[in-house]
Amino acid sequence: MLATMLYGPGDIRCEEVSEAKILHPTDAIIKLSASCICGSDLWPYRGANEVTAPMAMGHEYCGIVVEVGSAVKTVKPGQFVVGSFCLSDNTCPHCRFGFQSSCEQREFMTGAQAPYARVPLADGSLVATAELPSDDLIPSLLAVSDVLGTGWYAADAAGVTEGSTAVVVGDGAVGLMGVLAAKQMGAARIIAMSRHKSRQDLALEFGATDIVSERGEAGIARVKELTNGVGAESVLECVGMEESMSQAINCARPGGKIGFVGVPHGVTFDGQQLFFQQKSLLGGPAPVRRYLPYLMDLVLDREINPGKVFDLELPLADVAEGYRAMDERRAIKTLLRF
Amino acid sequence: MLATMLYGPGDIRCEEVSEAKILHPTDAIIKLSASCICGSDLWPYRGANEVTAPMAMGHEYCGIVVEVGSAVKTVKPGQFVVGSFCLSDNTCPHCRFGFQSSCEQREFMTGAQAPYARVPLADGSLVATAELPSDDLIPSLLAVSDVLGTGWYAADAAGVTEGSTAVVVGDGAVGLMGVLAAKQMGAARIIAMSRHKSRQDLALEFGATDIVSERGEAGIARVKELTNGVGAESVLECVGMEESMSQAINCARPGGKIGFVGVPHGVTFDGQQLFFQQKSLLGGPAPVRRYLPYLMDLVLDREINPGKVFDLELPLADVAEGYRAMDERRAIKTLLRF
Repeated sequence: MLATMLYGPGDIRCEEVSEAKILHPTDAIIKLSASCICGSDLWPYRGANEVTAPMAMGHEYCGIVVEVGSAVKTVKPGQFVVGSFCLSDNTCPHCRFGFQSSCEQREFMTGAQAPYARVPLADGSLVATAELPSDDLIPSLLAVSDVLGTGWYAADAAGVTEGSTAVVVGDGAVGLMGVLAAKQMGAARIIAMSRHKSRQDLALEFGATDIVSERGEAGIARVKELTNGVGAESVLECVGMEESMSQAINCARPGGKIGFVGVPHGVTFDGQQLFFQQKSLLGGPAPVRRYLPYLMDLVLDREINPGKVFDLELPLADVAEGYRAMDERRAIKTLLRF
Repeated sequence: MLATMLYGPGDIRCEEVSEAKILHPTDAIIKLSASCICGSDLWPYRGANEVTAPMAMGHEYCGIVVEVGSAVKTVKPGQFVVGSFCLSDNTCPHCRFGFQSSCEQREFMTGAQAPYARVPLADGSLVATAELPSDDLIPSLLAVSDVLGTGWYAADAAGVTEGSTAVVVGDGAVGLMGVLAAKQMGAARIIAMSRHKSRQDLALEFGATDIVSERGEAGIARVKELTNGVGAESVLECVGMEESMSQAINCARPGGKIGFVGVPHGVTFDGQQLFFQQKSLLGGPAPVRRYLPYLMDLVLDREINPGKVFDLELPLADVAEGYRAMDERRAIKTLLRF
């Protein structure tokens, strides 16, 4: 079958690989309904993470189960499933505590930018729908797998509550999903920081009440101005760079919470500074499995439409163009069809 | 009057200074019922913070109001009051949000290791009792001003709840108060990390269920062993050094919370490490003012006895010995009488 491989910075190839097959009794094989490219795929694509061997790309997935290992009990061939990009057994103490992304058996999904994929820990990672969903819901169900789940975790870690004020730093796909999540959680004020018209428009559509196009000190000053000099109780950091993290911390009020989901690259914190800033920090890979049933229901009930975040759709053969478009910020997020 | 001045590392003096007097209309003058030495006073005493000019020491206080400025409305001469070491107006947005220690007008109390002291922002910082308290309650009421309030904040920031497991890193006075706080908040399991018999005994008296005397990797391993390999949901960091912070983070379970109240010295965090550890961090100077009324009531109702943390009592004239005894860890905390 064809699959997406990264050979080195900028070198993404759609090439023939061996068929996906069961390796462990806890595996399932799914036929993907669609796949997509994640902002985090750009780290190795841009050379920010080292690539020492060809990498099978893709960790966002949904589709039809075609085969299960002998130990798999909760899903069966023919069912439509969505899974988390963090694979987990969903039974260990960390999973039961709601942090499936720190599961004792945690693995990260790979190889999902392909028509078929092996899903390890299938029982713990996959959630099936009652019936096959309508085709037009596929992009939104796929979004639940990572980008929406991650934005949701950012809002959750930032403690967004009914009537609160939230700031979203980062107008990538995750940031936009953070806006949607904050809206669903009842935030009264959602300030999206974005310099790009198309992303601003999407942020407003997802529920942003204010757009701040300034960055750095000017951006912080603008957020302070919008919050009577106080800052926000919840800030979602959806980038992972030093500047965005500093912006996030400085937009939060003392006692406020920062949920950070952009994998930090080159970010450090000084303990004493963090102490006197008096802001709460929680980050990490999102425990999407915790949110999967709820978010899938929101999509199936057509209460949210996260699939709108895909603004480019390509056949798998053109995956390299999908990476390029996202790298050059011509596309927010690329959907891949088979 | 006599007061305590620090001239440089190890050079603490009890010497004649001018009388405390009203400088601003929002000030009050109090006659202290007792004072004490704080673990944080040892930072400049040990040379870890630079001392460029003689410093008036002491920030923990309770006593009788003797004079108030023209703008003071909520306390009056003759009343017994306890105040927070962080002075605040208690009306600004940060105060109303419960983070009085980040008040827009915040000052830190000074000069309280003396028989009289000026308290700025008296209306916002002081809480009066209905009647004069019994003498034997003075040490416990004094403790509320900082050491108990700070231990309480550590437990609060660490999210201690009914039935939870808490680890306390640091067996200084604040750590011991953290144990007391966790007990009051209903923790089912309180693991105190301490190598000193007298402190272990006090920790057990305040509610610790387990003592871990190992440190570093061995200490972390022991906590993991006591928690079925999982770690604790709440960890109170009450030291402020690199090693203790690392211990705190590693004793917490993924998704667990660390409340850090030891002022960090030489502590840094790597963003990516913090991300994958997936633990919540909240520190800062304790918003003692938020807790004052509740904690004073607990003391007045004799439900808690935090004053037990004072294991050395000296006249003000011997304050230098009080510092030495704490520096050499011969005393946990020194009470000063006038």
